[in-house]
Amino acid sequence: MKQSNILIPTLKEVPSDAEIKSHQYLIRAGYVRQSARGIYSYLPLAQNVKNKIEAIVREELAEIGATEVLMPVLQPAEIWKESGRWDKYGADLMKMKDRHNRDFALGPTHEEMVTDLLRDDINSYKKLPLTVFQIQTKFRDERRPRFGLLRGREFLMKDAYSFHSETETLDATFDDMAKAYGKILDRCGLQWRSVIADSGAIGGKGSREFQVIAEVGEDTIVYDKNSDYAANVEMAEVYYEAKPSTAAKESLTKVATPGMKSIADVVAGLNVPIEQTIKSLLVQADDEVVMVLVRGDHEFNDVKLKNMLDLDTIALADETVAMTVMGADYGSLGPINAPAEMKIYADNNVQDIVNATVGANESDFHFQNANHGVDFTVEAFADLRMVQAGDLTPDGKNTLSFAKGIEVGHIFKLGTLYSEAMKATYLDENGRQQPFIMGCYGLGISRLMAAIIEQTADDKGLVWNKLLAPYHVHLIPIKPADEAQAALTTEIEQLLKENNLTSLIDDRKERPGVKFADSELIGLPVRVTIGKRAAEGVVEVKVRATGESFEIEVAELVAKINELLN
Amino acid sequence: MKQSNILIPTLKEVPSDAEIKSHQYLIRAGYVRQSARGIYSYLPLAQNVKNKIEAIVREELAEIGATEVLMPVLQPAEIWKESGRWDKYGADLMKMKDRHNRDFALGPTHEEMVTDLLRDDINSYKKLPLTVFQIQTKFRDERRPRFGLLRGREFLMKDAYSFHSETETLDATFDDMAKAYGKILDRCGLQWRSVIADSGAIGGKGSREFQVIAEVGEDTIVYDKNSDYAANVEMAEVYYEAKPSTAAKESLTKVATPGMKSIADVVAGLNVPIEQTIKSLLVQADDEVVMVLVRGDHEFNDVKLKNMLDLDTIALADETVAMTVMGADYGSLGPINAPAEMKIYADNNVQDIVNATVGANESDFHFQNANHGVDFTVEAFADLRMVQAGDLTPDGKNTLSFAKGIEVGHIFKLGTLYSEAMKATYLDENGRQQPFIMGCYGLGISRLMAAIIEQTADDKGLVWNKLLAPYHVHLIPIKPADEAQAALTTEIEQLLKENNLTSLIDDRKERPGVKFADSELIGLPVRVTIGKRAAEGVVEVKVRATGESFEIEVAELVAKINELLN
Repeated sequence: MKQSNILIPTLKEVPSDAEIKSHQYLIRAGYVRQSARGIYSYLPLAQNVKNKIEAIVREELAEIGATEVLMPVLQPAEIWKESGRWDKYGADLMKMKDRHNRDFALGPTHEEMVTDLLRDDINSYKKLPLTVFQIQTKFRDERRPRFGLLRGREFLMKDAYSFHSETETLDATFDDMAKAYGKILDRCGLQWRSVIADSGAIGGKGSREFQVIAEVGEDTIVYDKNSDYAANVEMAEVYYEAKPSTAAKESLTKVATPGMKSIADVVAGLNVPIEQTIKSLLVQADDEVVMVLVRGDHEFNDVKLKNMLDLDTIALADETVAMTVMGADYGSLGPINAPAEMKIYADNNVQDIVNATVGANESDFHFQNANHGVDFTVEAFADLRMVQAGDLTPDGKNTLSFAKGIEVGHIFKLGTLYSEAMKATYLDENGRQQPFIMGCYGLGISRLMAAIIEQTADDKGLVWNKLLAPYHVHLIPIKPADEAQAALTTEIEQLLKENNLTSLIDDRKERPGVKFADSELIGLPVRVTIGKRAAEGVVEVKVRATGESFEIEVAELVAKINELLN
Repeated sequence: MKQSNILIPTLKEVPSDAEIKSHQYLIRAGYVRQSARGIYSYLPLAQNVKNKIEAIVREELAEIGATEVLMPVLQPAEIWKESGRWDKYGADLMKMKDRHNRDFALGPTHEEMVTDLLRDDINSYKKLPLTVFQIQTKFRDERRPRFGLLRGREFLMKDAYSFHSETETLDATFDDMAKAYGKILDRCGLQWRSVIADSGAIGGKGSREFQVIAEVGEDTIVYDKNSDYAANVEMAEVYYEAKPSTAAKESLTKVATPGMKSIADVVAGLNVPIEQTIKSLLVQADDEVVMVLVRGDHEFNDVKLKNMLDLDTIALADETVAMTVMGADYGSLGPINAPAEMKIYADNNVQDIVNATVGANESDFHFQNANHGVDFTVEAFADLRMVQAGDLTPDGKNTLSFAKGIEVGHIFKLGTLYSEAMKATYLDENGRQQPFIMGCYGLGISRLMAAIIEQTADDKGLVWNKLLAPYHVHLIPIKPADEAQAALTTEIEQLLKENNLTSLIDDRKERPGVKFADSELIGLPVRVTIGKRAAEGVVEVKVRATGESFEIEVAELVAKINELLN
């Protein structure tokens, strides 16, 4: 492909609104253009890479027996009302009316659609299990679309759905899918982790996220360097082994703590170790207000309490609630003298504290020497905090590692959440109606492209591997008008073609410096410069990933390129 | 692929709302399902075929140097307002507002989008010409979506756009594109015609339609069996050679024609040959009312008058206008005594009539022996009628053939229509701003799938060729539980795979009759039945297209299948 015939509008300047590497390079290297906030056109190079990612996805999903479908963008409101998400999904759901005033959603996801599709056509356990997938444009009206392809309003996803009559086959498909995702991410050349995740709004009974390691990632993941264990920080379990303090329990003492609102204030003001303080939080747990205690240097993890109590909603209670319920400001809350009916949950580590400092439920006062079982009673001790640096891995053998990740995939065991809501049933072996057991499996194609760039691009531009590169080789004649260079360029183009290698030829009348800079931005794996020694049949090869460069005779070129690519 | 693992919900009954073959079979053979009027899900078999069609399209467009992009579904209203189509497009344009109340269109086509994209990034003639294409979901809120995939509201199209600084390169790209379309349709195994077409609402200066010959086609095309000539019936030129009547001109006579409203009435009532009558029509041509004369047995073609006079709008004037302007009802209109300022255009064939019968511009009266140049004057004679059976080809050598066609593609020379409206310019060699010269090239992917079925399906179901078939071979073990049959089925599946042939295995516990009927519905090119003689290694082959069937030893099977497919 000649560069003069393909739209690659490279830019010298970093676009002012692009904060992260992938966004900057996708614009600067002429891969994408924004047409409205969070809505992009894929120019030829990006579309080319996208097609290659899609091909890998299709291959790996075919390998596990999933078949491809294509469900509509426009989804009738009725099915979203059946699942309850027409309202629940909120302003992110893009809606429209057709000429007959009928309501439609622009699909952000297809659980309703696929359930509607299958409930009409699958009526017997004999036709299960079944897995379908699609690669389709999705819509989500993000309040703050940002980071280019990482968080757009119109984006591409692979989404798959499986239907089962037994949880065993759901488990098997879930595992197959996890393996397929791993292969896909490996073939994309990525460092990634599959982490235990919260099922969140989509519901269901088990889920894993696929996180691409990258500094700009919005998720924090923790993992064990020496095992497979990895989890979203919200789901990471704290390794706990009881190590009760051996200090003698002393008597409760009330002390004035004027102006000491935070744990740090109290630690400094009272000169106590932070590990001996207890943070007391008021939490709105569905309709009930409960208290949660964590050690002063720990952070409460609401997802753990939500899952433990099987709550629909959870939120920290605000200052007004604190004052109304406890009669004290938030900085002086504590378990002693709390209303009798209020349940108090405490993190495991609180068990070990003797002679703790806690709020006195009276503004500007704290208690010292507070001891659970003596001065206050706890409903239950449990793992209710976030893991933090220095915590051990779940097996207690190593220290947890932390990383930032970009969530590119999320797979869920949905169970019967949608099939029950939408009355999607099959007849079991005994002729009884049963709701489908379902799984759903998302992988962001456009987000994956951005994540790959975040992890692989360097300070000069994009760096593609062989499988994803829009073209394998960038052929750069220094003077395209020079007869020897033009002839050798054509010869090499042919040679590459015969060896199933694709090339982009920079036939533009630009200075070599411009061509080289654009070439590094665009990021094809191998650059071949045809210059002064063209008449001798000698060219320069430069490897994009390593920067390594050397001269080579054309006769050896193909073998060398294949070696470099593999 | 095992049939028990893939969603192919075949139906015995013809769906009541499916009027045409492609719609009926796509539903019955389990290829698609409707989710809302004109909005379909593609189930695995249809998606598989669609992917194959798309691959053919991508290959042929790459061959002519077009590169693939993907522009958004959601298009900002602003660019549609710039082109003037936000209002002009009418109720077919699906519109929505985002959470910030900004207007968007769901793209029915991408002229505005691509012009917007290019005007920002292409600033010099040096970067032209350039052709991009995409395969994207399009939306058109048809008042009456019907015929399954032939006229849907959400559908798939390949659309391409080319940008030029010279009309010569536009002409070349237009020709390349026409050739690429021809190859695509040939590879789909179709009988088709590329016809001269009207540019219609999309505007521009030249266009061709690609029509797949099929009885249910909504278009009528005419062609010369002995040449390349073909045209949409609206654009087909009438071969005209003057053959003036040699009869002596007689004197004009007014006759009463009470109740004779139509040409047929007049011919019968006055006992005159229809070829000697003239039909007079009043036409609203932009702001002017003009009269058009055609021979009694001919039909007026408004597209020809519209193009001849370069009109924006044309419509037949109604009865009220006739009465107001002419003082007579529509059935008695004629050129004699028409208002002096009214222009009269006549079809070429009217020239040859001597002693014609025409309306008298007085209700219930006609003139006989009317002669142009004597009794009335014509502004211009021109080709203003529809071709009809018996007309000659444009070279006068043969009789025109007529056929019904499904328009699957339409290519246009747009010229500067959009670039001028949207101020999309480049700098020419002299540093002057010039609007891009553009071409646009549409091909309906989902419509093409339906058109292929209309032309190729028989009374038993679908019939795919090798390139489009979702799988090459339908393997049908009569008793999947039988050991010999199961073993041979697995053996053949492996054998086929090793030879790059794909297969669908009907492993369902169904009666052979059900399996065979489903197999014919689904339409894979070759069926292999594994039955009683499995133990001997003998199977039955049946060719879907011809119905031919025979027994064969497994050792010879692959060679035979390859022979049948090619």
